[in-house]
Amino acid sequence: MPDVLVVGTGLIGTSIGMALTQGDYDVLLHDRHEAVRDAAVGRGAGAPWNGVERADVIVAAVPPTHVATVLKYAQDLDLGQTYTHVSSVQSQVQDEVETLGCDLATFVGGHPLAGSESSGPDAATADLFVGRPWAICPSVMSTPASIHAVRELARACGAVPMELAATEHDAAVALLSHLPQVVASALAGLLSGSHPISAALSGPGLADTTRLAASDAVLWTDILCANAGHVSPAVAGIADLLRQLALDLASVAEGQSDGRTAVAAFLERGNRGRALVPIKRGVRDAGFARVAVEVDDTPGRLAALLTAAGEAGVNVEDVHVDHVPGRARGVIELLVDAAAQRNLAAALRAGGWVVRT
Amino acid sequence: MPDVLVVGTGLIGTSIGMALTQGDYDVLLHDRHEAVRDAAVGRGAGAPWNGVERADVIVAAVPPTHVATVLKYAQDLDLGQTYTHVSSVQSQVQDEVETLGCDLATFVGGHPLAGSESSGPDAATADLFVGRPWAICPSVMSTPASIHAVRELARACGAVPMELAATEHDAAVALLSHLPQVVASALAGLLSGSHPISAALSGPGLADTTRLAASDAVLWTDILCANAGHVSPAVAGIADLLRQLALDLASVAEGQSDGRTAVAAFLERGNRGRALVPIKRGVRDAGFARVAVEVDDTPGRLAALLTAAGEAGVNVEDVHVDHVPGRARGVIELLVDAAAQRNLAAALRAGGWVVRT
Repeated sequence: MPDVLVVGTGLIGTSIGMALTQGDYDVLLHDRHEAVRDAAVGRGAGAPWNGVERADVIVAAVPPTHVATVLKYAQDLDLGQTYTHVSSVQSQVQDEVETLGCDLATFVGGHPLAGSESSGPDAATADLFVGRPWAICPSVMSTPASIHAVRELARACGAVPMELAATEHDAAVALLSHLPQVVASALAGLLSGSHPISAALSGPGLADTTRLAASDAVLWTDILCANAGHVSPAVAGIADLLRQLALDLASVAEGQSDGRTAVAAFLERGNRGRALVPIKRGVRDAGFARVAVEVDDTPGRLAALLTAAGEAGVNVEDVHVDHVPGRARGVIELLVDAAAQRNLAAALRAGGWVVRT
Repeated sequence: MPDVLVVGTGLIGTSIGMALTQGDYDVLLHDRHEAVRDAAVGRGAGAPWNGVERADVIVAAVPPTHVATVLKYAQDLDLGQTYTHVSSVQSQVQDEVETLGCDLATFVGGHPLAGSESSGPDAATADLFVGRPWAICPSVMSTPASIHAVRELARACGAVPMELAATEHDAAVALLSHLPQVVASALAGLLSGSHPISAALSGPGLADTTRLAASDAVLWTDILCANAGHVSPAVAGIADLLRQLALDLASVAEGQSDGRTAVAAFLERGNRGRALVPIKRGVRDAGFARVAVEVDDTPGRLAALLTAAGEAGVNVEDVHVDHVPGRARGVIELLVDAAAQRNLAAALRAGGWVVRT
């Protein structure tokens, strides 16, 4: 019997198929659009499903709103021994699966946390999940055998299985993924009504903080609403924190001294939280240092700078470019391992670069 | 008579001196630390002030809390004809200047909006202000001659003078600079109390949105408190927006359909606001496009990619690097002029790069 049947051969489904096939798993593929399935087959993700063949694990790699229907259909045909999915929201899917009368013993929710800025089988890669967490969210009825099967599937894709309750998962992504989106949209939203003169006075901090506000509003309406039970209290929490800060600042404006202490505490709490944020995935801010270099704003200068860094044996983890219109120069900030900062600055200066201290 | 006396030769004061000296202005420099003044003199920012010499314009390039004292001292000695400063907050400084009994006719507030990630005379550059806005905030008593003198000073530094009322300036920076700081700190602050398992589930969106939360808490306490009268209502405004969203999401969680419409409207408003944010200073998001390329996570690959872009004649405006630990590959996103996107993608593919669509 084949190991896995993947239903839905978009970016995630096809990437799962490619990863498993490379690991000598026997994978079957299905998509309601035959051309999409054929593209996945062409990427080496597996063989076309014939419509009746059984497999050990059925993976519904379809949008959250379709998962329950697909799994119910598969269970009714007794296609597999374990049934899972890959949705970014777990509780709502689990509720729908239960409502449709699926067998919960063989059902285990799953969510690989992997990049998906592109979509479709052409964007799939066999190593999409390598080193990434793969949330495993069993139902209260899930059998140990089914949980084990989904864990093994995640491991076979190179991911790190992380078992947690569906509500725990949804609360975590509400805070770490959905709340940043909300905050960026709120900040950008306030600007949409601001005085035109203001735009000239903005800097790179505003650009960073509102970056997510450009996200697809239709997609994010779905995501926020599907996880509304967890996102709502998280949003209420940050609203309360900001309301309190507004009161503290108002007391400062009125000349009361205790407000200032509260403002300082608010900013220090932000410092502590930021230190917990992985900036290279899995590695925190503290491990890195910045080297700022002044360069001409012409094609090729950034490349030359990075070549110089490479020649100094330093791997550049991230790059920030700050431009000024009408000014023949920009500042490029290189993020490097903290231990490499001194060497890089010295090597660049020796090579004639203007390194800021 | 010399043209300008700069009091305080840090990054801004020294940069002003360097810019003016290059433009054949006659500049005097003073700093309460002689070594700091000498460093500025060494950078070519001007000549040491002898303690009694007069100048046309006196620039107090000192921290906001010291501006009024410095200008009062200078006015009492009748050192100049026009008195200005370079603080990021205008109303409070203007109030203090008035309280100390300064002559308001010769006083004109100023705020060059220029990068200051580094500090001190060694980080100064003659072109720091080129193409940047320079807010000019007259008092109600300021004479046209004094306003003209400060405008000319800004122009001589290569900046674009922008006259606006002190309160208008403070309201704008409250929204565009101070509010992003507050929002980033609030979001990061919530994380400081989150469950440890959560950090593993975060992605690059969280890193962007909380970047400012790493800012110096002491400095930002000063800034937020000095502009508390404007920051407080801005923070209250975003708190209200978020509180309403929390209510809308709660109604979605309870199965009411109108909440969903409100969530969509909130996200769309964020889309519109984000489109107003200059991402290359002065140029909006809409003018740019992204090209995502998969690369090995090894020294030199980023440089090679940017060299390839340079050879294709495309200027890369910004770079985002996305890493995955344990995975021998990352995704690099190049931000380029929208018109150049197709050509760059084609050129890179022709050169063997894996370009995502």
